[in-house]
Amino acid sequence: MTDSPRLQPRVGDLSEGELLDRIFPRLAGLGDPILGPGDDAAVIAAPDGRVVVSTDTQTEGQDFRLLWPNGYRSSGADVGWKAAAQNLSDINAMGAVATGMVVSLTLPPQTEAVWVDDLADGLVEAIRALGAPGCTVAGGDLGRGSELSVTVTVLGSLEGRPPVLRSGARPGDTVAIAGRLGTAAAGLSLLEHGPRYGDLGPALREAVRFHCRPWPPLAAGPAAAKAGASALMDLSDGLLKDGDRLGRASGVVLDLDEPSLRARAALLSEPAGVLGADPLAWVLGGGEDHGLLAAFPPASQLPRGFAAIGSVVPAAGGPGGVAVAGRPAQPSGWDHFAR
Amino acid sequence: MTDSPRLQPRVGDLSEGELLDRIFPRLAGLGDPILGPGDDAAVIAAPDGRVVVSTDTQTEGQDFRLLWPNGYRSSGADVGWKAAAQNLSDINAMGAVATGMVVSLTLPPQTEAVWVDDLADGLVEAIRALGAPGCTVAGGDLGRGSELSVTVTVLGSLEGRPPVLRSGARPGDTVAIAGRLGTAAAGLSLLEHGPRYGDLGPALREAVRFHCRPWPPLAAGPAAAKAGASALMDLSDGLLKDGDRLGRASGVVLDLDEPSLRARAALLSEPAGVLGADPLAWVLGGGEDHGLLAAFPPASQLPRGFAAIGSVVPAAGGPGGVAVAGRPAQPSGWDHFAR
Repeated sequence: MTDSPRLQPRVGDLSEGELLDRIFPRLAGLGDPILGPGDDAAVIAAPDGRVVVSTDTQTEGQDFRLLWPNGYRSSGADVGWKAAAQNLSDINAMGAVATGMVVSLTLPPQTEAVWVDDLADGLVEAIRALGAPGCTVAGGDLGRGSELSVTVTVLGSLEGRPPVLRSGARPGDTVAIAGRLGTAAAGLSLLEHGPRYGDLGPALREAVRFHCRPWPPLAAGPAAAKAGASALMDLSDGLLKDGDRLGRASGVVLDLDEPSLRARAALLSEPAGVLGADPLAWVLGGGEDHGLLAAFPPASQLPRGFAAIGSVVPAAGGPGGVAVAGRPAQPSGWDHFAR
Repeated sequence: MTDSPRLQPRVGDLSEGELLDRIFPRLAGLGDPILGPGDDAAVIAAPDGRVVVSTDTQTEGQDFRLLWPNGYRSSGADVGWKAAAQNLSDINAMGAVATGMVVSLTLPPQTEAVWVDDLADGLVEAIRALGAPGCTVAGGDLGRGSELSVTVTVLGSLEGRPPVLRSGARPGDTVAIAGRLGTAAAGLSLLEHGPRYGDLGPALREAVRFHCRPWPPLAAGPAAAKAGASALMDLSDGLLKDGDRLGRASGVVLDLDEPSLRARAALLSEPAGVLGADPLAWVLGGGEDHGLLAAFPPASQLPRGFAAIGSVVPAAGGPGGVAVAGRPAQPSGWDHFAR
């Protein structure tokens, strides 16, 4: 602490202990770790003798901006929410349920301490709102750097089931998705190129908010596993790119129905109109929706939250990939729509 | 890939997939994950139904330099080794055995791709050399940023034992340590203020190397747990500061023997002489040795690797802390020796 603290202290004014004393109380009340923060490591239950683990870093300027061209200002809670949501989505995509996370923050000294409080609140809000009540925030690490970054590592339980991999899709399976397609990309375009945030109507604000606070359908992953999904993955880099990955991993082609894709695009007509953009490009190439792409065996009843968007066909000697209405699609063809 | 790749490609020339294709083969052959890298998440065994977890970020300019004032150049392997070692030490400090790690790398585009290969090799070297053969590198994340940083999250197994906490030391216990005291600080002083690295003799080089590649005694943590240690923690911020934490967590005072501390200081007489430094300050205040500080009940036989350095006495109405030869020590008094 400096001799004359400002009313709004900055990270550089506080010791690591003082910062942790602000943060830890905000993380209480989630889940029930065997041992929570404060020792050299935390201990979390892994009831079926296995633990699912995934890690992901968000860096300012690369993965998010604090101030966007349209005037929207990402709050600490937005950044915390998104960091939690992205990682929870990876656990969801294995058909698993999150049990805990640890968080490593790198903070420039001029960061306001309340922004960090807010980030902790955003993590907790996401865990509660998205439906991961068994997920505790069990510990973390604070460090300084010139660039703000947040690394979340999340653990999960398969609850006795096998993990649902990308490699299990078979010809004849139904291709289905849970969650949004293209909304996060529409939101990103509005943040980068749209009218000022304050002037946006509710539907456009909602797209912006969805980009900043994605909403992975956390009930859908375990439901897909229970329903016998043959393959499952997180939709983070766009439907064609992720579909290509799943198709190659399985050695099959995911043949997507054009009408379902166009119906999805129609949902984005308002932001597309404002920006003069092609909403189908968002549906096919937009990332960060954090929905699920799944394949289900032919006779399956799709679990709640999933909608069919195509079918799995043989790779016909190729490495597998993705097609739209029977025509092979080039995921790289949509790269100019990517960030 | 650019149209005219350089002979030594940089991170900015490669896609994430191309980088991962270089890295993953280097990580093979460690441990035996249930599911390794390549899907949305990895799956690691947690045989006793619990998992120990810790996370830590190293940031260039804060936690390491690529080029030090004495001319030493940190290799990617140094940075990978240290990132692995620090995290393995946290698992060790719970009395646990590492089972897996995930790694998130943030890389400036101008980073040479071979430097990243080297970092992966350093992770593997540390895991092998330090003695964590059951620890797999199960996955990770690659992103770009303006500042190089490495976040490792490590998982471990308690093998059916309770975790050994900081809070269990009781009056009458023996205070013991495993590993070095002050060597990493001596190495850091040489890096920052010493003669050119190329001019150093073997003992001084060894101190520099120990700072860059710390050597946590990974057999000692589980051995302490098996021997009934009442408290255990990683020595990362200096003996007095970490001793104060353990003392406060346990509500006792760790009373350290002056002769044992002076004997440790005597081992650092050569770097101290070169730098005109007080080696006792390194022993008491120097961080990053990643040894273990432990308390053992009175009748215990200390396990291999531990040496007694004091005894636990009552806190006498205070919050607990650390003392030297019966005189309360102020951990903050050594702060001017810290970085």
